[in-house]
Amino acid sequence: MTPGLARTPDPPYYAVVFTSRRAAEHEGYAEMADRMVELANGQPGFLGMDSVREGAIGITVSYWESMDAIRAWGRHIEHREAQRLGRASWYEAYSIRISKVEDERAFGDLTL
Amino acid sequence: MTPGLARTPDPPYYAVVFTSRRAAEHEGYAEMADRMVELANGQPGFLGMDSVREGAIGITVSYWESMDAIRAWGRHIEHREAQRLGRASWYEAYSIRISKVEDERAFGDLTL
Repeated sequence: MTPGLARTPDPPYYAVVFTSRRAAEHEGYAEMADRMVELANGQPGFLGMDSVREGAIGITVSYWESMDAIRAWGRHIEHREAQRLGRASWYEAYSIRISKVEDERAFGDLTL
Repeated sequence: MTPGLARTPDPPYYAVVFTSRRAAEHEGYAEMADRMVELANGQPGFLGMDSVREGAIGITVSYWESMDAIRAWGRHIEHREAQRLGRASWYEAYSIRISKVEDERAFGDLTL
């Protein structure tokens, strides 16, 4: 199957852009990343996610209904533990940008 | 060299999140993508870019000082031709989200 792209409702909504450079040693990372995707999917206000990794560099963009939904996800106990482990072992560096999506244009069938 | 991540000034600024699914046939794509990065770097108000591709799926996030800077880049004649070719041949689907970055938190040394 060709992987799909997230489909989101009409703006405005919010996007969390997470860019990261992973450490060479990253045991346990894949399992935790999968678990975070599963958990995020169950969070109130979660609208979707796009995630790509190319070698050390990863970009994950998650989409949310509101800032409150983003804050609640940031405080989720299991997510907080993943954040702690990320800083301690998996990531050399990352940036988290919280942004308000004001306009969107799509082309083609995103969800193949 | 370990690749770096974009460093941006304090918010607010703007992010263009471009997610795409590339077609199987994509001759000429890499050259055009390189040229667009080069061109974007020379645009007024350009702040940086993060770009990752994993198989068919790509995410490119470019950062801009203002909506006006984004509009000017969207209208750039060579960029418009790349957009046309993208729809005609390189992309099966894409989404362009224009967003205002309201908060940023970074960890580690982004620009190694």
